[in-house]
Amino acid sequence: MNELVFVGLGLNDEYGITLKGLEEAKTANTIFMETYTSHMPNFNLQHLEKLCNKKIHVITRQTLEEENGKQILQAAKEGKTIFFVPGDPFIATTHVTLRIDAIKLGIPTRIIHGISIMSAIVSFSGLHNYKFGKTVTIPFPETPAETPYNVIVQNKKVGLHTLCLLDLKESENRYLTINQALKTLQMMEAQKQQNCLTLNTAVVGIARVGNDCPVLKAGFIKDVIDFDFGPPPYSLIFLGDMHFMEVDALIAFADAPNEFRRLST
Amino acid sequence: MNELVFVGLGLNDEYGITLKGLEEAKTANTIFMETYTSHMPNFNLQHLEKLCNKKIHVITRQTLEEENGKQILQAAKEGKTIFFVPGDPFIATTHVTLRIDAIKLGIPTRIIHGISIMSAIVSFSGLHNYKFGKTVTIPFPETPAETPYNVIVQNKKVGLHTLCLLDLKESENRYLTINQALKTLQMMEAQKQQNCLTLNTAVVGIARVGNDCPVLKAGFIKDVIDFDFGPPPYSLIFLGDMHFMEVDALIAFADAPNEFRRLST
Repeated sequence: MNELVFVGLGLNDEYGITLKGLEEAKTANTIFMETYTSHMPNFNLQHLEKLCNKKIHVITRQTLEEENGKQILQAAKEGKTIFFVPGDPFIATTHVTLRIDAIKLGIPTRIIHGISIMSAIVSFSGLHNYKFGKTVTIPFPETPAETPYNVIVQNKKVGLHTLCLLDLKESENRYLTINQALKTLQMMEAQKQQNCLTLNTAVVGIARVGNDCPVLKAGFIKDVIDFDFGPPPYSLIFLGDMHFMEVDALIAFADAPNEFRRLST
Repeated sequence: MNELVFVGLGLNDEYGITLKGLEEAKTANTIFMETYTSHMPNFNLQHLEKLCNKKIHVITRQTLEEENGKQILQAAKEGKTIFFVPGDPFIATTHVTLRIDAIKLGIPTRIIHGISIMSAIVSFSGLHNYKFGKTVTIPFPETPAETPYNVIVQNKKVGLHTLCLLDLKESENRYLTINQALKTLQMMEAQKQQNCLTLNTAVVGIARVGNDCPVLKAGFIKDVIDFDFGPPPYSLIFLGDMHFMEVDALIAFADAPNEFRRLST
């Protein structure tokens, strides 16, 4: 049957896919994959091809955008076509247009979800999911933006945590570090003077969630800014009001300083 | 090696586990599982046992809470112990205490993440992840609460979507339906009179995300309240301001009425 199945690869490596995702791939006529919407540090393409028993066509951002997904749509008109996407296929909205285009062409589409860094970070942190406000991406310093700072300030005003994704340029092997992200935000604080981001602001730095050796470090900015998180990918959480159970979790899992006890509500 | 590994089972059935999760289970000394934090409609325990080639001990909420996880902690002191949890192991915060207790006993812990309904719903909806505010759970009518209504109102005021999880009592096979959830909120509106929830409020109803036949229906409350979503589990999104791409997605994926076009910003 002709169809386009978006399959999430999950985190870190080719073992992040679900059994369901792999089963679907085994019966596909054609498999495409992109590697640019997020970073899977230990991913091995040849091994995934072996697991699927199929050739996987890696497609670049440039190709996909220039030709509006023509290769993929053509294959999906002719037979069962899989599009492998790191994480979950639609948490980055990059591929929503491709799905809309397929539907307009009468091609049936399905989604096999993958683990997204969005939920994995919340889970790994031990924080309470319903205490997070709006999420934001912190860009590289050469493209500074006020939005991340404003979102952090707004969430904090109503007591909520802010999950910050840190920008990456996968094609250049470039990842915004936690140190750089904090410095960018400090510069914004110096401009805006909301007194919302000081050396005593409570944060959690996260590296390599989903990997065999992830790192979680909670502390005040002064403790975290020079902490060595090792290789990418990185994320950052600005803490809002904390339930005492959240503080317990950060002390147990994230080496939070004991001063965090007085932050709980 | 003795350790406690929390493994997420993902959504719907035993094929929702990752290859990594399954590999870990194959080398475990003991496997426990709980089935009460979320609903996996097509889950087959015997088949998962066959895939792992191991007996799986199902543990009830009552047992786990009454004995403070003693069985699991005892097994983890003695050898590699897996605790299977539907979805992602720590998106519901139920098991955070167990992980803290293990660490206090000197037992190493690890997490193998699973797909969470939190990210899968966002992905499935075609909406933009960074446009969601705080998440909320809508309780059964016999335990009415103001919080869900207030969260929806607050998110909407700043233009954000609200993801609403609908309560479930897995042991009684009882699931709050989208119809019941909307009626509960309408009653709260009648009390609070914020004029934030009318028959013309835009929502998205979701059933069985991660299943082979998930349902997504966008519309005004008047269109969605009597829509037949089929069997559980259910979720609901209250829409904030929409980007035109989000409207396009809801029209293509969720049969949104054309009037949604005038809602985009």
